[in-house]
Amino acid sequence: MIVFPGFQALDVFGPLDALNVLAFTTKINLTVIADTLDPVSTNKVSWTNSSVGATFGETILPSHTYATAPPLDVLMIPGGLGTRAPGTGLDTTIAFIKARYPTVKYLISVCTGAGVVARAGVLDGKCATTNKLAWATTTPWGPKVKWVAEARWVQDGNIWTSSGVSAGIDVTIAWIAAVFGEAKAVSVANGMEYHRQTNSTDDPFSALYGLTNEKNSTNQAVDKC
Amino acid sequence: MIVFPGFQALDVFGPLDALNVLAFTTKINLTVIADTLDPVSTNKVSWTNSSVGATFGETILPSHTYATAPPLDVLMIPGGLGTRAPGTGLDTTIAFIKARYPTVKYLISVCTGAGVVARAGVLDGKCATTNKLAWATTTPWGPKVKWVAEARWVQDGNIWTSSGVSAGIDVTIAWIAAVFGEAKAVSVANGMEYHRQTNSTDDPFSALYGLTNEKNSTNQAVDKC
Repeated sequence: MIVFPGFQALDVFGPLDALNVLAFTTKINLTVIADTLDPVSTNKVSWTNSSVGATFGETILPSHTYATAPPLDVLMIPGGLGTRAPGTGLDTTIAFIKARYPTVKYLISVCTGAGVVARAGVLDGKCATTNKLAWATTTPWGPKVKWVAEARWVQDGNIWTSSGVSAGIDVTIAWIAAVFGEAKAVSVANGMEYHRQTNSTDDPFSALYGLTNEKNSTNQAVDKC
Repeated sequence: MIVFPGFQALDVFGPLDALNVLAFTTKINLTVIADTLDPVSTNKVSWTNSSVGATFGETILPSHTYATAPPLDVLMIPGGLGTRAPGTGLDTTIAFIKARYPTVKYLISVCTGAGVVARAGVLDGKCATTNKLAWATTTPWGPKVKWVAEARWVQDGNIWTSSGVSAGIDVTIAWIAAVFGEAKAVSVANGMEYHRQTNSTDDPFSALYGLTNEKNSTNQAVDKC
C-alpha cells in the first residue's frame, strides 16, 4: 500500500482492514510504502488544511520507502486530497507505480488514487473508475483512459479501480473473492459486519453527482468495459 | 480516540474518516490517545499474531498519552483483538475511561470496545451493543449491562455503542446527525460514497450469528432499550 501526505484514511484502512481479517486465515504480508520512513499524515500539508480551522488527521508509519520496497504481488494506491499535491509532490509516487506495475500480479486503486495511476500511464486504453464527486478534476489526468462513470468498481485485466472512499472496501472484497475464492470473501465481509456490495455497476453516487456513462465516460468504447 | 496494541483498524479509521470529512466544514479537533507516544500497531503483539504466519498490520502514532490528554468532548473507544490483552494490559485504558467519562459530552464505542467500556463500569444499567461474532466472549465483561443483540448500534443517553467493525461508520454518522444535524450527516456519507445505514435495529449479523434479543440479551429490561 502506497501512502503520501493527504491520503484519505478510509481509502487505506478500508481495504487494509479487509486484508487484516483475511490475514487471520491466509498467509499474506503487508508493506506500507512512502517517500521516506517518516510518519505520513492524512493532513498536515498546506493544501489539505481545513478552511474552517479544524485540526483533524491521523498519522501512520510506513514500513518501507520507494527505494527499499521489496518485490510486490499487489500494488495498492489510495486517493485523497494529497493526490492534488502541487508541483513535483507526487513525482516519486508516479515513478514508483510506473516502474512497479509491470512486476506485480495486481494493481488496486481507491478513489482519486486512479488519477495518480493514470498519471503513471498505467491506465492508458484501460477501463477504470474513480471518485464521483471529484470526477471532473480527476479524469483529465487520464485522457486515454476509458473512464466508466456508473461503477462502484471496475476490473480490467489485473487492474481494479474503485469509486470514492468506502468503495475501496467493496473492490477489495471483490478482489479477495476473485483471488482467494468467494468463501473467503464472505468470511471477511461477515467478520467486518460489512454490508458488502457485490454488483460492481450499482452506483447511486454517479447519479447523485449527475454522472452517466453516456455523458461522462470517455473513449466511446466504454460500453465494452 | 483511544488506541491500544491490537486495535481493529476499521474500528478507528471508519469513524475517524467520517470525522475527517466532517472536518472539511466543521471546526473539530482530534486527539489520538494511548499509553505512551510510541507507535501503536493493529498487531505486533503476541496474542494477536496470525496463526497462519501472516505478517499484516498497520501502525499509527498517538498524539497524546493518558497522562497528557487534554479535556475531551467526545471519547471514542475501538475494539479489536487487543481488547483481549492478558493480565493488566488494559488497566490504564480502563482507568482512563472511568476517570474521563464523567467529563465528556459523549462516549462512542465500536465493536468489542464496548467490552472495555463495560469493564470501566460506565455501561452498568445502560443499553448497549457490541460485535456479534464476539458476543459470547464480550458481553460477560458487563454483567450489569442491558446488552441488545439485534442492533447495528444503540444510543443510551450520551453513550453510543456499535456492533462490529464497519458498524462504527454507521454509529458515527448517526451521531453526526444527532449533534451536527442531518444535512451534515448526509454530506459526510455522500462524501465517503457510503451506503449509510439509518435504522439502528436493522442487523442481519445478529441473525447470522444466531443472536436474538429474546435469547441473547441481558437484564430482561432490554425490551425498553
